[in-house]
Amino acid sequence: MEVITIEREVLKKNDEIAEENRKLFKDSGLFALNLLSSPGSGKTSLLERTLFKLKDELRMAVIEGDVQTSNDAERIAKMNVQAVQIITKGACHLDAQMVRNAAKSINLKELDILFIENVGNLVCPAGYNLGEDRKVVLMSTPEGEDKPLKYPAAFRKASVLIINKMDILSHLNFNIDEAVENSLKINPQLKIFKTSCVTDEGIDHWCEWLKNQVKK
Amino acid sequence: MEVITIEREVLKKNDEIAEENRKLFKDSGLFALNLLSSPGSGKTSLLERTLFKLKDELRMAVIEGDVQTSNDAERIAKMNVQAVQIITKGACHLDAQMVRNAAKSINLKELDILFIENVGNLVCPAGYNLGEDRKVVLMSTPEGEDKPLKYPAAFRKASVLIINKMDILSHLNFNIDEAVENSLKINPQLKIFKTSCVTDEGIDHWCEWLKNQVKK
Repeated sequence: MEVITIEREVLKKNDEIAEENRKLFKDSGLFALNLLSSPGSGKTSLLERTLFKLKDELRMAVIEGDVQTSNDAERIAKMNVQAVQIITKGACHLDAQMVRNAAKSINLKELDILFIENVGNLVCPAGYNLGEDRKVVLMSTPEGEDKPLKYPAAFRKASVLIINKMDILSHLNFNIDEAVENSLKINPQLKIFKTSCVTDEGIDHWCEWLKNQVKK
Repeated sequence: MEVITIEREVLKKNDEIAEENRKLFKDSGLFALNLLSSPGSGKTSLLERTLFKLKDELRMAVIEGDVQTSNDAERIAKMNVQAVQIITKGACHLDAQMVRNAAKSINLKELDILFIENVGNLVCPAGYNLGEDRKVVLMSTPEGEDKPLKYPAAFRKASVLIINKMDILSHLNFNIDEAVENSLKINPQLKIFKTSCVTDEGIDHWCEWLKNQVKK
């Protein structure tokens, strides 16, 4: 019981800091996204393709969350986009305080979009608001069509679902219609994009959606 | 600070119950395995192939951990093997108490192997001993070769690594030698099997290893 109380307090404190982040992002006039998925679904690859497509039109930066290593921030930095790495040292999710600290080294007022790539984990990050405008959940075709049912929180809290690795669909026993159906069962409001970072399928649609969010 | 203290107490209490589980499993003469991986790496598929191959030689049962749904236990039950589902209702890992409760409905003395399939999560389950003899970590080829470096705890604590979905290797930009190298950098003692639950590649080697553990 004690643990549950402490957890509630941790979440309450996190929500307070997330609200402050949200205000900070809003005052800076940027659109902030929190990307959630299992390890290896392709969050960093999606960001690489997105930054490549939009870098002449929008001003963007990335906060990278990882348990260990700064591999992802190094990949993003190669795109000539500012990337700040948070290494959680074992913690299974980003929290609002980590994001606030990382955001201090970014000139937020000069941004249109701030991407926050969470730790690869389809469970814990769903419980921690970071102050983002929208959560985006990724699943990839090799993971199987039942993932929305088995890990519902991330799908319930996201506004956008990206079904990634469409290029290998024909080599898998993956029923994409069932995956979509399962996702909409959990969250009927989900906006869904089907993408491949290898063939570029769906990337333009996703980028179009991003541009429309900035305009609003 | 308070949270850290509570977490330490939770882990200490968990380790105590895990030790009791370990004694219970040892006294029952069974070999217990704790399977860890990201969602969708193929833990349940591996178990299905393993049970199919070994069901005439060994007596086996499965404890299934999931955040939501009893899909996996239903898949296992179709193999005519006893399967007990733990639904964690949002919790991101199994703990020793959950396993102890689930084990009450299994006749342990009549088993050679007890498989415990953890929640799909490459981070949190690594911190919780369940009383198993060995941890087995799975990664699948679509997840990318850097996963051992980015999520080192699971790879460090496992005795066995299974690299699954070998059947789609040729359709991916996945360097398997680098994946093996990264894994051994984290844990030089890892016993590694390369498997496919579609083509059955490597399944016999893995089953052979299992049979040898039971003999000991």
